Amino acid sequence: MKQRVLSGVVLTLFAAAIVVFDQIFPLALNIAVALISAAAVDELARALGLQRKWFLYGPSLLAAGAVPFCEARYQFLIYCLYTFGAFAAMIVYHHETSFKEVAVLYSMVVLIPCALQTLVSLRELNRVHGMFYVLIAVLSAWAADMGAYFAGTLFGKRKLCPEISPKKTVEGAIGGTVADAAVMLLCGLCFSRVVYAGGVTVNYWLLAVIGLLGAWVSILGDLSFSLIKRSCHIKDFGQVIPGHGGILDRFDSVIFTAPFVYVLVTFFPLAGV
Amino acid sequence: MKQRVLSGVVLTLFAAAIVVFDQIFPLALNIAVALISAAAVDELARALGLQRKWFLYGPSLLAAGAVPFCEARYQFLIYCLYTFGAFAAMIVYHHETSFKEVAVLYSMVVLIPCALQTLVSLRELNRVHGMFYVLIAVLSAWAADMGAYFAGTLFGKRKLCPEISPKKTVEGAIGGTVADAAVMLLCGLCFSRVVYAGGVTVNYWLLAVIGLLGAWVSILGDLSFSLIKRSCHIKDFGQVIPGHGGILDRFDSVIFTAPFVYVLVTFFPLAGV
Repeated sequence: MKQRVLSGVVLTLFAAAIVVFDQIFPLALNIAVALISAAAVDELARALGLQRKWFLYGPSLLAAGAVPFCEARYQFLIYCLYTFGAFAAMIVYHHETSFKEVAVLYSMVVLIPCALQTLVSLRELNRVHGMFYVLIAVLSAWAADMGAYFAGTLFGKRKLCPEISPKKTVEGAIGGTVADAAVMLLCGLCFSRVVYAGGVTVNYWLLAVIGLLGAWVSILGDLSFSLIKRSCHIKDFGQVIPGHGGILDRFDSVIFTAPFVYVLVTFFPLAGV
Repeated sequence: MKQRVLSGVVLTLFAAAIVVFDQIFPLALNIAVALISAAAVDELARALGLQRKWFLYGPSLLAAGAVPFCEARYQFLIYCLYTFGAFAAMIVYHHETSFKEVAVLYSMVVLIPCALQTLVSLRELNRVHGMFYVLIAVLSAWAADMGAYFAGTLFGKRKLCPEISPKKTVEGAIGGTVADAAVMLLCGLCFSRVVYAGGVTVNYWLLAVIGLLGAWVSILGDLSFSLIKRSCHIKDFGQVIPGHGGILDRFDSVIFTAPFVYVLVTFFPLAGV
């Protein structure tokens, strides 16, 4: 528990450092997203036992690491080359691996970097407020996780989905939703009153929607990756983050909330001068 | 054999009709691509035994059919909704299906419509020559297939990849490559001399590259889908096209050549006034 909170604090400080130093070193976000994507794909390849199939593992890591640095046109090129490479590797390894395992890795090399690079796209939506959007996307996942963890520990009685994730409770999910909405509104208030001292109007309705729905999107991400872990017969994806597990154990819900927030923000304005 | 040629002629006439009537009814190409994508996904879902899992099968068909009609922003929205839907369905069906089967379907719902909708993107690259690009992308696959079939039947001795596709020979592959390059150059000549009567310059070097490499990209597509068929323990994906099998049996190589040609044409001009 202590370890978990400590790791959470360290992660939040890391995220805060990227936000604060964005104006000085804007590539920091791309690098962070690339590292997280590549680490997540690496954990998945290991869980599937594909880490020694170099013609498959190498291009998967490369694609995951390259996507967050590229604009759409080059991302498409990367995925074309990766698809040709992955299928050629599947033919090379057809004695040793089944197509289904390759398909799991392939789908995750598409899903994880595409989902996480929406954090970079969110930043680029607006040169001034972009980083606020990024923070909202990450915090909407983490606030739901944290809220669910504490509400579940305090009030948890009815199991939510005991066969997939035995610790999740209905009370935790409700607590996570309330916490998420509260954190989102608080972020908006801080941003408009403190950071911009009233110079910016924030769409609080949209923030409330992000909080209320984002918590469930976050739970969906969490449960999905729990199922993937179950199908790979592992408990955690790694031990990189003490108390949390692997990178994927911590970022599984961000993989779902980041594109969710991105889609909402591209269709509805979140902040304006 | 007779049936195979006849079906080939009917398919080519269909393709020609879309090309000829493009100016009058430009949506015909989108409709054709949407139908082929949805049919391919349907065949794959059936091969995986997922056609009765409605919460998975329905959204997969819908996503595949909708993507060719949308611009990039809405395609991203569709894939977001599809991802949430597919993972939620995976949780609903977690007793009956494994994540690996869902991952196969998911990866194909991403790959097939994204690859085939590059035909629509190719048309939109240039309002005047666009349809020429589309024709090149489709014919580079079919010319390689046809060339390999006839060269293989006439001269085939050494097997190319007997465990995956027992009928493919090295001689067939070489014949397919030569035929593909020849057809590409012939298309270029027809387009610049006959259709535009010398008013257009065509990059014959690029056409030769598309022919020579496209034949191998087409073989890669063919072998990849043969492996998928093997892993699903089926011989053909369907019986829609007499003598060829299912839609996926005929379009497997186009799924690989279309994005290949699209990427090449976006980086290097193929035709200019």
